[in-house]
Amino acid sequence: MNDFTHLDEEGRVRMVDVGGKENTERTAVAGGNIRMTPSTLKQITDNSVKKGNVLETARIAGIMAAKKTSELIPMCHPLNITHAGVDFYPDHVSSTIAIEAKVSLSGQTGVEMEALTAVSVAALTIYDMCKSYDKAMIISDIHLKKKSGGKSGEFTAPRYLDGKH
Amino acid sequence: MNDFTHLDEEGRVRMVDVGGKENTERTAVAGGNIRMTPSTLKQITDNSVKKGNVLETARIAGIMAAKKTSELIPMCHPLNITHAGVDFYPDHVSSTIAIEAKVSLSGQTGVEMEALTAVSVAALTIYDMCKSYDKAMIISDIHLKKKSGGKSGEFTAPRYLDGKH
Amino acid sequence: MNDFTHLDEEGRVRMVDVGGKENTERTAVAGGNIRMTPSTLKQITDNSVKKGNVLETARIAGIMAAKKTSELIPMCHPLNITHAGVDFYPDHVSSTIAIEAKVSLSGQTGVEMEALTAVSVAALTIYDMCKSYDKAMIISDIHLKKKSGGKSGEFTAPRYLDGKH
Amino acid sequence: MNDFTHLDEEGRVRMVDVGGKENTERTAVAGGNIRMTPSTLKQITDNSVKKGNVLETARIAGIMAAKKTSELIPMCHPLNITHAGVDFYPDHVSSTIAIEAKVSLSGQTGVEMEALTAVSVAALTIYDMCKSYDKAMIISDIHLKKKSGGKSGEFTAPRYLDGKH
Amino acid sequence: MNDFTHLDEEGRVRMVDVGGKENTERTAVAGGNIRMTPSTLKQITDNSVKKGNVLETARIAGIMAAKKTSELIPMCHPLNITHAGVDFYPDHVSSTIAIEAKVSLSGQTGVEMEALTAVSVAALTIYDMCKSYDKAMIISDIHLKKKSGGKSGEFTAPRYLDGKH
Amino acid sequence: MNDFTHLDEEGRVRMVDVGGKENTERTAVAGGNIRMTPSTLKQITDNSVKKGNVLETARIAGIMAAKKTSELIPMCHPLNITHAGVDFYPDHVSSTIAIEAKVSLSGQTGVEMEALTAVSVAALTIYDMCKSYDKAMIISDIHLKKKSGGKSGEFTAPRYLDGKH
Repeated sequence: MNDFTHLDEEGRVRMVDVGGKENTERTAVAGGNIRMTPSTLKQITDNSVKKGNVLETARIAGIMAAKKTSELIPMCHPLNITHAGVDFYPDHVSSTIAIEAKVSLSGQTGVEMEALTAVSVAALTIYDMCKSYDKAMIISDIHLKKKSGGKSGEFTAPRYLDGKH
Repeated sequence: MNDFTHLDEEGRVRMVDVGGKENTERTAVAGGNIRMTPSTLKQITDNSVKKGNVLETARIAGIMAAKKTSELIPMCHPLNITHAGVDFYPDHVSSTIAIEAKVSLSGQTGVEMEALTAVSVAALTIYDMCKSYDKAMIISDIHLKKKSGGKSGEFTAPRYLDGKH
Repeated sequence: MNDFTHLDEEGRVRMVDVGGKENTERTAVAGGNIRMTPSTLKQITDNSVKKGNVLETARIAGIMAAKKTSELIPMCHPLNITHAGVDFYPDHVSSTIAIEAKVSLSGQTGVEMEALTAVSVAALTIYDMCKSYDKAMIISDIHLKKKSGGKSGEFTAPRYLDGKH
Repeated sequence: MNDFTHLDEEGRVRMVDVGGKENTERTAVAGGNIRMTPSTLKQITDNSVKKGNVLETARIAGIMAAKKTSELIPMCHPLNITHAGVDFYPDHVSSTIAIEAKVSLSGQTGVEMEALTAVSVAALTIYDMCKSYDKAMIISDIHLKKKSGGKSGEFTAPRYLDGKH
Repeated sequence: MNDFTHLDEEGRVRMVDVGGKENTERTAVAGGNIRMTPSTLKQITDNSVKKGNVLETARIAGIMAAKKTSELIPMCHPLNITHAGVDFYPDHVSSTIAIEAKVSLSGQTGVEMEALTAVSVAALTIYDMCKSYDKAMIISDIHLKKKSGGKSGEFTAPRYLDGKH
Repeated sequence: MNDFTHLDEEGRVRMVDVGGKENTERTAVAGGNIRMTPSTLKQITDNSVKKGNVLETARIAGIMAAKKTSELIPMCHPLNITHAGVDFYPDHVSSTIAIEAKVSLSGQTGVEMEALTAVSVAALTIYDMCKSYDKAMIISDIHLKKKSGGKSGEFTAPRYLDGKH
C-alpha cells in the first residue's frame, strides 16, 4: 500500500488491543451524588413522586446502562459483566443522594467505565423523574472509588482513603 | 376486570402522556465539568494522549448519546432531535474541562435529558480515554443551564444567573 | 435494468408505506397473563423475591420494550410514542398475574405492536425474576384488547366483548 | 459511609453475581403458539401474505431477539450465545402455529430467557405480519420446555413429560 | 464563560440543525452490488445455501438497518421513516447481485443515508451467509441513485443518466 | 410433536452452532474505498469540511460499528472483540480514500464480518459528512484482505496477492 500517502498518525483513535491481557476476576466501585431541594428529597424518600418510584427506576436504569457501556463510550470493549448493583444513600442534612455502583467481570479488561456509567445514568434518571419539581438539581462527584484485578492491581481513590467520602 | 385485586397504585412508574402538549421549538443547554491532574489536561490539549484525540471522541460520543437518551432513561419519550452539539472549555488554572451541550427539537416535550445525557457521556468518554494516566478524575456539576419552549417556558439555572459559572 | 433477471416477487418482505396515512391520535391496549405456583405468586405480592421488586422491574421493562418495538419486529415503523403504561392484576384464585399495557401516539400508524411487545416483555421479566423458584411458569393469552384511531377505526377484541376477560 | 441512612434493602433489584458459577455447555428449548383464523393460517402456509414471507421473517426476528435478550430483560446477563434456531409447526386442525426456539451457550449462566424471548418475538412478528387480516390472534403457552447444563442440571417441563404438548 | 480558553473551532463535529427546514415528502433510492463466483451465485438463486435463504435474510437485514442508520452514522438525525424496501437483481453473466433500496419519509431532512445503509447491510449479509463458500466476494458501487424532496430538490446520479447502470 | 406438519426445512435460516469450535486468536483485515471529486477530497484532507473532522468521525463510527455487527447481520454471533482499528489512505491521483479495518478476537468464530462492517460504516460516514458537497460519491471494493486463526486457517485475498491493491 506504499502508493498511498499515509495520514499523520498522531491523535488517531484506537480501541486498545487487550487480547494479550490476563483473564482475571475484576471489580470496580464508582460513586457520585445528586443534590436537590429538601422537599424534592423528601418526596423521593416518601415515594410520593408523581412519575413513580424514583430510586427503584434509577437502580434499574443504572444496571441496564452498565450493560450498554460499550455502545456509549466509543473505545470501550464489549464485556459480559457477571454482576451489577446500584445503591442509594439519601442524606437529608446535605440534601443529596449518594449513589454507588459495583460491577464485576471475569475478563481481560477492567469494568471502571461500566461502574461510572451506572452511577451517571442512575443520577440522570433521578433528575428525569423529579424534573417537574426541581430543574436545578446538580449531579456531582462522579469518580472511581476502587478497582481490583488486572495488571494495574488495586486502586483506591486517594480522597476516599482520606475518609472524606 | 373487577375480579382482580388491584395493586396499590402509589409509586407506579408511568411514561407521562405528552399527546396533548403543544408542538413547539424547544432547546436545552446543559453543562458539567471533569477535573484531572494538570499533566493529564496538558496531554489532552496537546492531543498527545496515546488512545487518540480525546475531545473529538468525547464530542462524538456526547452527540450520539443524546440520540440514545430514551433508551437509557426509562421514562424518557423517544424524540427526533433536530440538532445536537457539544463544546469543551479546558481551563489550566482549575485543571478542569468544562463541557456544554445544546440540543434542539420541534416537538411535544423538552430536551433537557438529551442535553444532560450528552454532557455525562462526553465526560465519561474523557475519563475512558485518559484513565491509564489518571484514575482519580472527578466529573462534577452536571446541571441544566437553560431551556426554552413548551408550557413551562424559559428556565435559566439560578446559580448561572449569579455569574458563578 | 432490463438486463437483470428479476426474482419472483411473491413473498417479498416490505415495510408498508404509511406516508399517505392520516396523522391521528392512536391508542392500543393489549393484555396477557402469566401462570405460576401459588407460592411464587405469594412471594411476588409479598415483595419477598430474592432478586428484587418483581412487578416494578417488569413494569419498567415493559415500558422500555414498547420503545424498542421497531428494533425487534422487522417490519414495524419507528414511532415516537407519547405514552406507555403497564399494569398488573394478580389473582390468587387462578394463580396468575394479568398484565395490561396501554400505548398512545399521534402519528401515521397504529401502536398495537408496541402494546403487545410491552405485555410480552413484562411477562418475560416476571419469568426471569422468579425462575429460580419456578421454571414451569406459562405466559398465555397475549392479545390486542382495543385500538382506536386510524383508518380502520375502533377495534375491540371479540372475546373481550363477551365479558370473558 | 456510616453517615448516610441506608435505605431498607428489601425488594432491591440485583443482577445476581454469576462470577463463581462454572463454565459449562448450556442449552434451553422454549415453546409457545399463536392462534388465528383458519384463513389467516392458510395465507401464511401458502406464503400469500401481502407483507411478505411471514415465517421466514418471524424466524429471523426470533433469532435476532435472542441476541437482544439482555437489553430487554433488566437483570439478564449479557451472553455470547453460540447457537440460536427457531422452528414453526403450523397445525390446521387447531388453527395455530407452534413455535419452538433452541439456544446454546458455553458460559456461566443459563439461556432460558434467550429461548423464551426468541419464541415471544417470533410470535409477535407473526402477529405484525398478519394483523391487517386478523387482529384477534392470541399468543399462548410460552414456556420453557427443557434446559441442560449448569448447577441446577436438567429441567424438563412437567406437562411436556405428560405428552400433552 | 470568558475565563475559559476556547478550543480552535475548526474541524468540530456538528449535528446540523434541521429545525428550520421544511417538512416534505422525501424519497431516496440507493444501489450497489456484490460480485461472487458463479457457483456461489447459483447456490443463492437455487436457495441451496446451507445457512438459509440468503436474499430474504439480506432483505430483512437491509430494512432493519435503515431504521438503525442514526445509531451508526454519528451525525445522522433520528428519523421515523415511513417506508423501506430492498430488491435484488442477480445477474449470472457478470456473476453479481445488484441491490437497490428505497426509503421514504415525511420530514425535515433527507433519507439518502438510510437508503445507502440498507444497501450496505444487505450486501454484508449476503457476504455473511455465503462466506463459508466464497471469502473473496467484493461489494462495490454503493451510490445514491435518486433523491426527491427537500430544498436541494431532485438529484439523479450522473452516471445513472448515462444509462450505464 | 408428530401431530404437526413440519415445514419444508430447505432454506431455513440458522445461526450456526460454534459451540464446538476451538477458542483461538483470530484477526481479520478488510478494505474498501470511496471515490469523490478532487475538491471534496481536498476539503477532507485540509479538514475544512463544514460538518467537522471527516476522517476522525468516520474512524470512530467504523470502530463503534464493529461492536454492533451482530445487531446488524442477522446470523452473526455476538462477540467480545479485543481490538478494532480503522485507517484511511487518501489518494489524490485516483481521487479516492482507501479504508482499512482490522479487528481481533480470542474466541470461537472469526471476525471477518466485524472488519467488513467497520469499513462499510466508515465509508458511509464519509459520505454523510460530505454529501452536501458531493452526492455522487461511490463506495467500492469492500472485501476481506486477510484472516488468521480458526479451523479454516489463513486466508489472503487472491487479488491482494497479485500486488494489485
